[in-house]
Amino acid sequence: MVVLLKQNPDKKQLDGLVQWLEGIKIQVHMSEGLHHTIMGLVGDTSIVDIDLLKALEIVEDVKRIQEPYKNANRKFHPMDTVVNVGNVKVGDGNFTMIAGPCSVESLEQMKLIAKEVKKSGANMLRGGAFKPRTSPYAFQGMREKGIEVMIEARKESGLPIVSEIMDPSQLQFFEDVDLIQVGARNMQNFELLKELGKLRKPILLKRGLANTLQELLMSAEYIMAGGNEQVILCERGIRTFETATRNTLDLSAVPMLHSLTHLPVIVDPSHGTGIAKLVKPLALAAAAVGADGLIIEVHNDPAHAASDGPQSLTPEAFDDLAKAVNNILPFAYKGE
Amino acid sequence: MVVLLKQNPDKKQLDGLVQWLEGIKIQVHMSEGLHHTIMGLVGDTSIVDIDLLKALEIVEDVKRIQEPYKNANRKFHPMDTVVNVGNVKVGDGNFTMIAGPCSVESLEQMKLIAKEVKKSGANMLRGGAFKPRTSPYAFQGMREKGIEVMIEARKESGLPIVSEIMDPSQLQFFEDVDLIQVGARNMQNFELLKELGKLRKPILLKRGLANTLQELLMSAEYIMAGGNEQVILCERGIRTFETATRNTLDLSAVPMLHSLTHLPVIVDPSHGTGIAKLVKPLALAAAAVGADGLIIEVHNDPAHAASDGPQSLTPEAFDDLAKAVNNILPFAYKGE
Amino acid sequence: MVVLLKQNPDKKQLDGLVQWLEGIKIQVHMSEGLHHTIMGLVGDTSIVDIDLLKALEIVEDVKRIQEPYKNANRKFHPMDTVVNVGNVKVGDGNFTMIAGPCSVESLEQMKLIAKEVKKSGANMLRGGAFKPRTSPYAFQGMREKGIEVMIEARKESGLPIVSEIMDPSQLQFFEDVDLIQVGARNMQNFELLKELGKLRKPILLKRGLANTLQELLMSAEYIMAGGNEQVILCERGIRTFETATRNTLDLSAVPMLHSLTHLPVIVDPSHGTGIAKLVKPLALAAAAVGADGLIIEVHNDPAHAASDGPQSLTPEAFDDLAKAVNNILPFAYKGE
Amino acid sequence: MVVLLKQNPDKKQLDGLVQWLEGIKIQVHMSEGLHHTIMGLVGDTSIVDIDLLKALEIVEDVKRIQEPYKNANRKFHPMDTVVNVGNVKVGDGNFTMIAGPCSVESLEQMKLIAKEVKKSGANMLRGGAFKPRTSPYAFQGMREKGIEVMIEARKESGLPIVSEIMDPSQLQFFEDVDLIQVGARNMQNFELLKELGKLRKPILLKRGLANTLQELLMSAEYIMAGGNEQVILCERGIRTFETATRNTLDLSAVPMLHSLTHLPVIVDPSHGTGIAKLVKPLALAAAAVGADGLIIEVHNDPAHAASDGPQSLTPEAFDDLAKAVNNILPFAYKGE
Repeated sequence: MVVLLKQNPDKKQLDGLVQWLEGIKIQVHMSEGLHHTIMGLVGDTSIVDIDLLKALEIVEDVKRIQEPYKNANRKFHPMDTVVNVGNVKVGDGNFTMIAGPCSVESLEQMKLIAKEVKKSGANMLRGGAFKPRTSPYAFQGMREKGIEVMIEARKESGLPIVSEIMDPSQLQFFEDVDLIQVGARNMQNFELLKELGKLRKPILLKRGLANTLQELLMSAEYIMAGGNEQVILCERGIRTFETATRNTLDLSAVPMLHSLTHLPVIVDPSHGTGIAKLVKPLALAAAAVGADGLIIEVHNDPAHAASDGPQSLTPEAFDDLAKAVNNILPFAYKGE
Repeated sequence: MVVLLKQNPDKKQLDGLVQWLEGIKIQVHMSEGLHHTIMGLVGDTSIVDIDLLKALEIVEDVKRIQEPYKNANRKFHPMDTVVNVGNVKVGDGNFTMIAGPCSVESLEQMKLIAKEVKKSGANMLRGGAFKPRTSPYAFQGMREKGIEVMIEARKESGLPIVSEIMDPSQLQFFEDVDLIQVGARNMQNFELLKELGKLRKPILLKRGLANTLQELLMSAEYIMAGGNEQVILCERGIRTFETATRNTLDLSAVPMLHSLTHLPVIVDPSHGTGIAKLVKPLALAAAAVGADGLIIEVHNDPAHAASDGPQSLTPEAFDDLAKAVNNILPFAYKGE
Repeated sequence: MVVLLKQNPDKKQLDGLVQWLEGIKIQVHMSEGLHHTIMGLVGDTSIVDIDLLKALEIVEDVKRIQEPYKNANRKFHPMDTVVNVGNVKVGDGNFTMIAGPCSVESLEQMKLIAKEVKKSGANMLRGGAFKPRTSPYAFQGMREKGIEVMIEARKESGLPIVSEIMDPSQLQFFEDVDLIQVGARNMQNFELLKELGKLRKPILLKRGLANTLQELLMSAEYIMAGGNEQVILCERGIRTFETATRNTLDLSAVPMLHSLTHLPVIVDPSHGTGIAKLVKPLALAAAAVGADGLIIEVHNDPAHAASDGPQSLTPEAFDDLAKAVNNILPFAYKGE
Repeated sequence: MVVLLKQNPDKKQLDGLVQWLEGIKIQVHMSEGLHHTIMGLVGDTSIVDIDLLKALEIVEDVKRIQEPYKNANRKFHPMDTVVNVGNVKVGDGNFTMIAGPCSVESLEQMKLIAKEVKKSGANMLRGGAFKPRTSPYAFQGMREKGIEVMIEARKESGLPIVSEIMDPSQLQFFEDVDLIQVGARNMQNFELLKELGKLRKPILLKRGLANTLQELLMSAEYIMAGGNEQVILCERGIRTFETATRNTLDLSAVPMLHSLTHLPVIVDPSHGTGIAKLVKPLALAAAAVGADGLIIEVHNDPAHAASDGPQSLTPEAFDDLAKAVNNILPFAYKGE
């Protein structure tokens, strides 16, 4: 951390600051110049509140040089983390294919889709039971019944199941869910993250629509600080000025995250584009860029899907996509 | 709602669509052209799922023409809503000044600040007890103790109190809070919004960092659909590419919201800029543009504030701001 | 184009509008509902000024349904365009690899790099002679001398050359340049686009930092409206809130543009990320998503490159990238 | 400028870097810590290429602490600059009101509008002769004829005239224009900026749609580095995800620019919002926030304006706005 002092800082305030920093075990190095004095802070600066420093009268600016996350930081954990979801390994060279409908609608539907996507090579089944919808008048999901349907569908297919939680009060229904998803709108629902940190089961953490990679890693840090280290990150598109696609899928996030963290990173091209015909090309791109997996919306009847119809693939289209992805994988980016 | 059909749509599918629409009481008007056929839908289209229509094979595009919110829509409620917070009226020409620290730190602090800001003309007291912090290592607030401190500070000052809720499980502590704030990061925490819709007390709903005005109104609609019509909206800055300020305060949101909705709209220049020296000029601008009030961070010792120090004013600076705002108010924008 | 009229529009004004529209050969279809009247306009609506309609007193809103570009529109030109740059074909299944330094620095440098990148499979040579730099104090390029160096380097390598023009006054120096590049900052330099429309040589049009795909196509339309149909589009990253990368590379733009236009689309992962280590993974992703080519910064000594050093690859790194891209190509997305 | 070195940097490379920096008169201060070594650079670092440093193998990151602009920097020129446009003083407490149509259409129109806006208190007349239009099929302006009309309108009204230049080749027509405008799309047309730097007449530099305040100041620096110090900055809205308004007017830019630079800053609420009914409230807000002036679109017949009709005011509406602004001015923000 680097602190730029104002010209001619008050001597007493400066001494106070240095003492305080040294008291919390931070080494202080001063570089005095003609116009500016720079303080270099060395030590565990993740505990220093950058805003507090900025507010001091004698301080002009503060720049953080070390990342404010520890558990998620590759510098301190150089080896890739592998997250075990049921019998599926995610990360460190394993490619995961998660597929299923946006919303759970019925047991028949889930059984049918599970069978189809498994045949095409999916190794996890997704399905939304609790649905975050912009409008209070839109379908809000089957809720706990939907989770029951998912569990039933797992029995037959053997695929581990993934579903989204929206609130800590729903935790009781997720005990038997293999991978608990935190949606983009809840990426900074810190009370929820803390509760998930108390669990010892895998969490799929989606990047918020307007959140930086550093904020995504800080949210992962919330979960990990509670002792739950089984976090999978998911790039699912960010909000930009472009309106041709629903979101802008940020694929540079994948190799960038891989350099910053040891956690696995998967990609959601369905929400990332919002348009069914773009899902396949972006899935291929995500595989090529080195993602640890994909999460794809598949519906037997997209035109009548209860939510997010326009971005869902038919099982046939998913089969075509999965084959194309498998062709790319041997030639995908494997890191430096 | 306008539906653009693909060229030569399948006759059977088209008939099915028209029948379905007419079944839910929507009138359908066809405009056939050489290259395109356009369907105009007239009636209560807020119940039509736009994504479902877009997913139909015969449909090229769908455009919504009527707003998808009803309770919050000025078209259906032309008169300004007045929200009563304790003895304070918000909206319809009443200007509200909310002030207080970002975080509640102690009873002494709250009593001191309450006294000071009341003297300067504030008519509500804010203070964060439950704090949404990006880092799990940052101060998380005094939590329920903080609410108790707020209630105590109200006794002495007589000012109604405002505090932020982060999760439905905290509702038990907010029974005696006059105005419950939903923070930017929770604007689309739909489970929380539904719970707040069951209350019969005022809600301060802050715009999310990357949320459109329509999404803000849809979140207000969530609360109102539950029967709680006492919603105050708050513009507090959006996330853009600009890094000179923490957020970009969108003051055009104020008159735009006033034309779309009957709900009061206040402005938070403290979070909107993140820089103490910008709070006063933006507060004046917010008053001039026609806001129904301001919410301002004030701290007796900003340099040592537990959170968000850089954007807090001293009581003296707030007094100066309040006087300047009062000078502007008689000449502020009053609507068309 | 769909026009939503206000309630009870003035009869005389409405008649005037309908007459005017019919006068410019637009068919008008009226759909009268209880609350709204919708006018469907059918015909060549690209000549209708949408802003003019919106400004009319009787009009509430106007939505364009047909794209406002014609020459660039795939609907009217379903077959892929092939742009011939020297002996290199761009588009329609041909994959183009453009490589070279950000700035031309000397003839020795250009000869060396040309030789190296050709060996690795590049089929065009890029080099900046006129450099758009944010700071007036930064190196502004070798200018006309730089173009001479490029032409000299072509002699030896046989590679067609690509260089950026910044102003119509520089056109005299570009007569012997094979592919004239319009940089992101000049995408809406309409005077320059008009001049390029008068030429009959290939133009490489880069997307602006904050420009939509539709605006990119409108800028292509400027060139094509002048009679020059040899336009290659280039996605090079857009400006978003994310600061971990210099820009956010929007790879969904590639398949989306392919569906909207018949023009070839290439990708620039060097400027798109601004970080050398991200160039290879994003190049692989661009190949997989179906791009018609890549433009890559290569420098023999990136650490001392005159501009944009951090995003340049060494010739060895480029060779590694080119091999990896060639492995992906057979399995890349080929369209629906 | 602060340079963070990688762990255990190569000794020879480090010595080379230090020697080079000292050679260009930069003092180097080293702070060695356990994990990082930080170099503080003191001196005129505006000549150091930050990208070059970042590209060095031994460097992990570089942060600029001093602003890269000098002529525009308030630190080196603490007093407000006053720009003289004809007999009108802009800046340092003078409030300027510029009004007129988006496009010049005829002499009759310009004379009429000039007379009207002067009566309401405008002290400069704007009018577009060369028009940057997104579509090649839209009206491109009266061009040199338009400038002649402006000059004629000045004769009668006595108001100095403002018009936009799009290309250096048009400079010949602007000799008798009092204030030359650089539009948002040309803010980084560096060849144009250099030519304007050679003039000794006032320039109105509009912020680009996606440009930071620092980039705006760097573009001002381009003009000033050429010796032309008469630059007026203009905030006119930035591009964000919000679509309710055409742009998002960033009023925090005004006090922020005032703290960074001594140049005057005016606001364009017409383009900033794109909606006529929002112009007045945002004009009041701009006055309150401390802007040095306004530039407002006024048209005698907005519904039939040749361009940008929806955001133009009638002369009556402008008169109402001007009166309201004058009421605000005595109470506007005057700086710290």
